[in-house]
Amino acid sequence: MARALALAARGLETTAPNPRVGCVLVRDGEIVGEGWHRRAGEAHAEIHALEQAGEHARGATAYVTLEPCSHFGRTPPCADALIGAGVARVVAAMEDPNPLVAGRGMARLRAAGIVTAHGLMENEAHELNIGFVSRMTRGRPWLRLKAAATLDGKTALNNGVSQWITGPDARRDGHRWRARACAVLTGIGTVRADDPRLSVRDVPCERQPLRVLIDARLDVSTKARIVNGEPILIATACEDRARSAPLLERGHQVVILPDAAGKVALPALMRELGRRGVNEVHAEAGFRLNGSLLREGCVDELLLYLAPMLAGDAARGLFNLPELHTLEAATRLELRDLRMIGADLRLIARLRPA
Amino acid sequence: MARALALAARGLETTAPNPRVGCVLVRDGEIVGEGWHRRAGEAHAEIHALEQAGEHARGATAYVTLEPCSHFGRTPPCADALIGAGVARVVAAMEDPNPLVAGRGMARLRAAGIVTAHGLMENEAHELNIGFVSRMTRGRPWLRLKAAATLDGKTALNNGVSQWITGPDARRDGHRWRARACAVLTGIGTVRADDPRLSVRDVPCERQPLRVLIDARLDVSTKARIVNGEPILIATACEDRARSAPLLERGHQVVILPDAAGKVALPALMRELGRRGVNEVHAEAGFRLNGSLLREGCVDELLLYLAPMLAGDAARGLFNLPELHTLEAATRLELRDLRMIGADLRLIARLRPA
Repeated sequence: MARALALAARGLETTAPNPRVGCVLVRDGEIVGEGWHRRAGEAHAEIHALEQAGEHARGATAYVTLEPCSHFGRTPPCADALIGAGVARVVAAMEDPNPLVAGRGMARLRAAGIVTAHGLMENEAHELNIGFVSRMTRGRPWLRLKAAATLDGKTALNNGVSQWITGPDARRDGHRWRARACAVLTGIGTVRADDPRLSVRDVPCERQPLRVLIDARLDVSTKARIVNGEPILIATACEDRARSAPLLERGHQVVILPDAAGKVALPALMRELGRRGVNEVHAEAGFRLNGSLLREGCVDELLLYLAPMLAGDAARGLFNLPELHTLEAATRLELRDLRMIGADLRLIARLRPA
Repeated sequence: MARALALAARGLETTAPNPRVGCVLVRDGEIVGEGWHRRAGEAHAEIHALEQAGEHARGATAYVTLEPCSHFGRTPPCADALIGAGVARVVAAMEDPNPLVAGRGMARLRAAGIVTAHGLMENEAHELNIGFVSRMTRGRPWLRLKAAATLDGKTALNNGVSQWITGPDARRDGHRWRARACAVLTGIGTVRADDPRLSVRDVPCERQPLRVLIDARLDVSTKARIVNGEPILIATACEDRARSAPLLERGHQVVILPDAAGKVALPALMRELGRRGVNEVHAEAGFRLNGSLLREGCVDELLLYLAPMLAGDAARGLFNLPELHTLEAATRLELRDLRMIGADLRLIARLRPA
């Protein structure tokens, strides 16, 4: 299964909207076939493994990182292919997270006389497809908020200067996280201050993630880099066609999702991204949008780079949040990973349910 | 030498104002005697080791973590004792950091025909006595600033609530650092907000460090815990005897060190503490005094506990510093140690020369 997971991870940046899946066929203690899913529309992991195994698949055990599909999508069901090849046993790391189909693939295999089991390295399999699981079970993507700050929690000076707080290694690492996401999200404040492209550049990348700009009043300048290039998705609360027309003309998409306060309804945007097949969102924004995303419950994970420097209280912080009156009201996190990236510190922490 | 350093470390909390020193005597590949300095006024490490070795010291090699002393202090010179015992070779991890005596102990040994060497595990020896080295070479203690903050760099809510951001393991670890310091320093702001005792309580401790309170106007309430107990040192800019009298009556010491702005001259206080034999200062204060200590170049090391939570921008930060206009002007740090203490993250970072 560890091998199947390693194979699945090869599709980290390319399988979306599909999950990352790997499969290993073992007979008499030897690997007779292996495969991984590369791209939506192409063959699933099981099919690649069965092709490689040929006749050796008969009587073999299939280790798959996700329950084999039982329905016709863009490709025929993998469960049928495993049955047809005479596989004797199927071990899945986890069931399909979609509550409507969970267990059906396994049931179909059992009905054909195949021994099934699941749960082996389930946590690892779940982590690998955390965005897909989120979309299937919650109808919205997994949102990872990336931020770079000084050790005293400052992301920019008061004059807006923020480039570069962290070093080149941390920036390259940040691009690696962008590359695995289906969408990279930012706000108009960041576009005004830094004029980012938000593309993956510092690491090799087979396909660029969708770029999403939150711009409540469609204030984005037509000179901004983000609207001069591949089409992006702009979420706004502004219904003024005169403002959206120049953006639409350039091929960008505009979705109008106003909330009661005239801002972009962030939870609605998350659902919209889920409908569009976005599994993982990588957010890089300033303290205002960061605060809004956090307040509205849209943040699942924090990817925080801390540079070994101090900027002092006058500089801008990480999260614009309303004043707290008790420490119990603070947002709790669970630290998941901690390491040095060059001279900077990188933390991965998850939001804990209150 | 590693063994000698481990022995020396046993005196971590008790040797002040003397350095922590260990000694191991080796003859024919076997340890024949070992010792460590426990307390000022008592025998030095070399003397303990020589006593244990007895006649076996003749022809032995002495590994000492610090150059043996050559002068009469409260005890006779160790160099003479080593010569008298017939030791053949002396290896010191480092020379005496006091520029007035550096090398004299080794010279005295060589004059008596003993082979000498130094530099073995010198970094480790230097770290062990970083405060002593600081006092000898700079005339002031090593100042370690301890702070506890949320991951977004907040030490307290705006209403002053700060207990407890970090967990019990981090608090106990903080007491361990207090215990090794010669002095624990805080400001009147922290005394008003938290009414701390600043004593070592959560870990065993043979002697309590000197407590130092910075209180420019002698505003401390006679009801504050810190002035109701063992005598403390109060640094002030206030010359009003009516304000100092009640403190002096309780046995506390008051030093008047005003700067041009009517605050306590912090660099002058550091020199005063150096004169009093303080090697390591452990500072625990709020963002105002933290900022002043940093601005005035008094901070050597940061001991920072980060709790896995977010408080948002409205809360109080770590360092009150003037606004920066370029990132180049930010205070640079060198990360020295990084680990989890319970659920919290602990960082040790040193100030880098600009």
